[in-house]
Amino acid sequence: MTATIAVPTDNSVREVDSDRYPLLAHISAPDDLRKLAPDQLPAVCSEIRDFLINSLSTNPGHFASSMGAVELTVALHYVFDTPYDRIVWDVGHQAYGHKLLTGRANRFHTNRKLGGLSGFPNPDESEYDTFTAGHASNSISAALGMSVAAALGGDDPRRHVVAVIGDASISGGLAFEGLNNAANAKNNLLIILNDNDMSIDRNVGSLNSYLAHLTASKGYNTFRFRLYKLLKKLGLFNDKNRGRVLRFNNSLKSFFTKEQNIFEGLNIRYFGPFDGHDLPRIIRVLHDIKDMNGPRILHLRTVKGRGFKPAEENPAQWHAPGKFDPQSGAIITDGQVHKPAKYQDVFGETLVELAGANPKIVAITAAMLSGTSVSKMQAAYPDRTFDVGISEGHAVTFAGGLAKDGMRPFVAIYSSFLQRAYDHIIHDVALQGLPVVFCIDRAGLVGEDGATHHGVFDFNYLTGIPGMIVASPRDERHLRCLMYTAQSSSVNVPMAIRYPRGSGKEIDWRCPMHELPIGKGEKLCDGMDVTLLSVGPLASEAVKAIEQAKADGISVAHYDMMFLKPMDTEILREVAEKGAPIVTVEDASVKGGLGSAVIEWLSDNGCTLPVTRIGVPDKFVPQGSVPELYALCGMDSEAIYRAIVNAKNSSK
Amino acid sequence: MTATIAVPTDNSVREVDSDRYPLLAHISAPDDLRKLAPDQLPAVCSEIRDFLINSLSTNPGHFASSMGAVELTVALHYVFDTPYDRIVWDVGHQAYGHKLLTGRANRFHTNRKLGGLSGFPNPDESEYDTFTAGHASNSISAALGMSVAAALGGDDPRRHVVAVIGDASISGGLAFEGLNNAANAKNNLLIILNDNDMSIDRNVGSLNSYLAHLTASKGYNTFRFRLYKLLKKLGLFNDKNRGRVLRFNNSLKSFFTKEQNIFEGLNIRYFGPFDGHDLPRIIRVLHDIKDMNGPRILHLRTVKGRGFKPAEENPAQWHAPGKFDPQSGAIITDGQVHKPAKYQDVFGETLVELAGANPKIVAITAAMLSGTSVSKMQAAYPDRTFDVGISEGHAVTFAGGLAKDGMRPFVAIYSSFLQRAYDHIIHDVALQGLPVVFCIDRAGLVGEDGATHHGVFDFNYLTGIPGMIVASPRDERHLRCLMYTAQSSSVNVPMAIRYPRGSGKEIDWRCPMHELPIGKGEKLCDGMDVTLLSVGPLASEAVKAIEQAKADGISVAHYDMMFLKPMDTEILREVAEKGAPIVTVEDASVKGGLGSAVIEWLSDNGCTLPVTRIGVPDKFVPQGSVPELYALCGMDSEAIYRAIVNAKNSSK
Repeated sequence: MTATIAVPTDNSVREVDSDRYPLLAHISAPDDLRKLAPDQLPAVCSEIRDFLINSLSTNPGHFASSMGAVELTVALHYVFDTPYDRIVWDVGHQAYGHKLLTGRANRFHTNRKLGGLSGFPNPDESEYDTFTAGHASNSISAALGMSVAAALGGDDPRRHVVAVIGDASISGGLAFEGLNNAANAKNNLLIILNDNDMSIDRNVGSLNSYLAHLTASKGYNTFRFRLYKLLKKLGLFNDKNRGRVLRFNNSLKSFFTKEQNIFEGLNIRYFGPFDGHDLPRIIRVLHDIKDMNGPRILHLRTVKGRGFKPAEENPAQWHAPGKFDPQSGAIITDGQVHKPAKYQDVFGETLVELAGANPKIVAITAAMLSGTSVSKMQAAYPDRTFDVGISEGHAVTFAGGLAKDGMRPFVAIYSSFLQRAYDHIIHDVALQGLPVVFCIDRAGLVGEDGATHHGVFDFNYLTGIPGMIVASPRDERHLRCLMYTAQSSSVNVPMAIRYPRGSGKEIDWRCPMHELPIGKGEKLCDGMDVTLLSVGPLASEAVKAIEQAKADGISVAHYDMMFLKPMDTEILREVAEKGAPIVTVEDASVKGGLGSAVIEWLSDNGCTLPVTRIGVPDKFVPQGSVPELYALCGMDSEAIYRAIVNAKNSSK
Repeated sequence: MTATIAVPTDNSVREVDSDRYPLLAHISAPDDLRKLAPDQLPAVCSEIRDFLINSLSTNPGHFASSMGAVELTVALHYVFDTPYDRIVWDVGHQAYGHKLLTGRANRFHTNRKLGGLSGFPNPDESEYDTFTAGHASNSISAALGMSVAAALGGDDPRRHVVAVIGDASISGGLAFEGLNNAANAKNNLLIILNDNDMSIDRNVGSLNSYLAHLTASKGYNTFRFRLYKLLKKLGLFNDKNRGRVLRFNNSLKSFFTKEQNIFEGLNIRYFGPFDGHDLPRIIRVLHDIKDMNGPRILHLRTVKGRGFKPAEENPAQWHAPGKFDPQSGAIITDGQVHKPAKYQDVFGETLVELAGANPKIVAITAAMLSGTSVSKMQAAYPDRTFDVGISEGHAVTFAGGLAKDGMRPFVAIYSSFLQRAYDHIIHDVALQGLPVVFCIDRAGLVGEDGATHHGVFDFNYLTGIPGMIVASPRDERHLRCLMYTAQSSSVNVPMAIRYPRGSGKEIDWRCPMHELPIGKGEKLCDGMDVTLLSVGPLASEAVKAIEQAKADGISVAHYDMMFLKPMDTEILREVAEKGAPIVTVEDASVKGGLGSAVIEWLSDNGCTLPVTRIGVPDKFVPQGSVPELYALCGMDSEAIYRAIVNAKNSSK
């Protein structure tokens, strides 16, 4: 159905231990949960938490979000008739409990692995997973679509649709657009705001402080909710007088509290905040508001990491902690002392270095302070660091404004999330030729997060924008030099630097920095039989393949193009004159990347050399470890080696 | 500086008639305006309106928005020290008055023409135009960037920065992201909400009804503002006790009105609403709030089309009315009775036809009911038509939710605005293979609206998405058949159909519809010397060129590819075997369009035919008439003819 590369499903089953998890072991679908008595449910919650702690301690994944959403998850499946009723999870870090309750506990050891369960809700995996949930803030719009479809009779007008959105995701522009439209069509949408005052890092933005205010005025809201229930009981509340009662409520509120309610300003009935860990209460509230007409929002306060002390105390670190000791809570490291740094840390430390010398540099991140290591800049220059929350579009346009008035913004955003700001790059930066530096982390295949997170389209969409400089370093030292170049006075246009997730190769990457000439590549080695052109860190896979080919007596010239736009036409001319068949290597979609650009240049210049393009195929790529995915996509050194041999043979 | 194609500036000057416009004729910069006495300003407003009516009646442009913003414009330039202080206009339909006051009245007859003044604020044109203003909702983020830059000392901490945003634009997600971030950094941003209750059509969304509520509670706000001024006078209001006074105000408000204030919920001080045509009042208020610290919003109610009765009565029609009689207000048509329909109307009427037969079809537009002719669907099936306001991202994700639960959404959005929803197409539609139909209007070069509005990147960004079907009809009949195909049961994946602005060629386009095979093109004529491959309506320019070449004895085969993805490989194989040089023709960027795809296919299939790519160069394209721009970009029949001749000659 979808255009995703198929891999064999990992159907290995580990039965849930019925001694340790006496209830969970017998829940193979929410129907089983719904057969339990209400007083058994807290035990289900405990079992889910135990299961998550044990499973994730050995097979790492997102931890703290799901721990905080356990009661909410149980309550939803208990009250609603899933999968007939729809639950739309936003982002889906929080949805592990949901996976356990919907028949996937016995496959949970395959979580995030090649062929295994997806780390996010995934409609291809289960009918309980109603919508893709990798990029934040989409749940309200998607659920509204489902709810309107139900109202139109597309499927069924009685269907309940519930969007579950975190307080970070709800601050994204897309969520606001959804809220702004929720009341404008006939629908029965219930929005659950899972408010833990955190995104991955501590949450930012005015809406967030506003939610804290709401919590402070909890007393009033509780009073109002009781009043509402009383009126309903007395038959005084019905759809006809709903508007009048709402107005009455609002007057009451004005009387009892100084607070204003943004959601009711948008014609969405607001309930809350309630303690999101008080399971009996949540169930009661859900029953009470379930059959109301029109859009409603239920505000639940939860604690990220709930039920596991170390995670409660340090939720940012425990967002995705890696392996840990389930007893002590000690995070398990691989024990290596001297190891290569992550690319993001090379970026972060280099940024601090550059900012020290250039007062015009400012840094912007969209809810990814620690995930991009902009946290280092924040520690050093807090006034020049801006975490704008989940707002990639704003991040870029804000950078445009800063650049227009003399600053040199470094915008650090993951490749797949930067897709949200495509128009903003074109309209608010490139069209004016503003010198914004896009530091694109998680470029290329990212591994276990899967199809929603692979950063493989950026070469295509960025090189299509007139006047952009697009570069990718082959190693940490070149990342540093590209960053140095981007903030130098000789660059006065937008420049994108893309680099991968994970670590590089070098221990000692703190090289002196110098300016690199824009649009110039580098010859790494000479050779006569085949020409290999690479861009980015896959150069190292190429080097291995070239060594292997050398052993077979095939001599390969290797150029690191470094810049995809503008491309080094001197190199291309040299290569064309030499006349050896070409292999291109890149960690991005072959549609519109290096290979395409090389072929176009050759065609435009009347040159007819054969070109083999190695890169991500024109398919969505599933999850797996990066080496597994390189092999799957034919991008590892072995595949490059085969391409070299084939190129050599076919040119004979 | 920018990567825009340079055209000679039209510097022709028409002196402003000092008899008719005694004040305006002597305002060559806002400094001149600021020398006038306050009581002369209403006369300036009248002159601006007269000037706009007269100029736009013969040289059409956006009319009603600028008419409604005259007092606001005069007040801003009177109170603020432009261009040192920054005014950031959102969208910029409203900025004609601003152009007249900033030294461009004598060039206003060149508005929207090749080499003339831009119809939007354009930083390349004037230092008074601070930021690109073609796509809605960017002003708050951009102005916030400027204000933060000033606070950081990037330029100057005392600089005032004012964003002027309409009530339609402020409903976009980007604007919300800006509002949500406005209070989180030191800045001095003033946001002016120009609220005329209209976008191009009547405005929609909950925020909009909320603004109407605010207006209803005007009495209270007026009271509060007076109170604020009194406190300030008495020295009781200063930055130290600002928070306390704000809370006091809020309690007062709870007492005096049932209203809540969304903006103050976001920590932005709110003033208003005031009558946006009461010039002395606006000037007083601006003086009062000018030097406050922190972000503020001033809410002005205006009337779109103000000062010209026909426009006030029918602001949607007068958004951009074309030529008209300045006395009677009669809109001047070209008098042709039987003329080809606009593509958008073919789309709109066909949609109604299809929706009559297929109850699953729903239509979605983003604030462009009349601009896309979705208005026809709304008239016929109001319950199945959704105008979501300026929210392209939500439009697409909402469509994803509808499609997921069985509906067949047709999303009609202009090509350049759909850029805002790039990630949503990938993440919320394509990744799940959902059958959403993207009807992409204004594809290709759109003419006078210029660089921000040309829809030239869509082939590139859409074909980079796995599993998308991307098609473009060569004429109205094929548009109908593609739409028919897109909703048929044989298509169960996302499909994009792009078509141009303006009219087609046929009077009688109401053909019976039939399904077209996906990925199949059509041979239009045979020929031996050159092969021409086209996609989309530029086929007609190609036909002319082929006729011209025929007269020279050059025989050209012409194929309409119809689908860019998947491409018709049978045609490509036939073409490759024939071995004639190839010319490709498309109304989109040559980076990543038809030409690129053909070259890649040939290279992948070991074929070495020369390919000449005709399309939009990898540059931003300025404004001008479409024929002028075709000539500028080498895309008209003459350029195609030359390419054919060159291809023939070089292959000898």
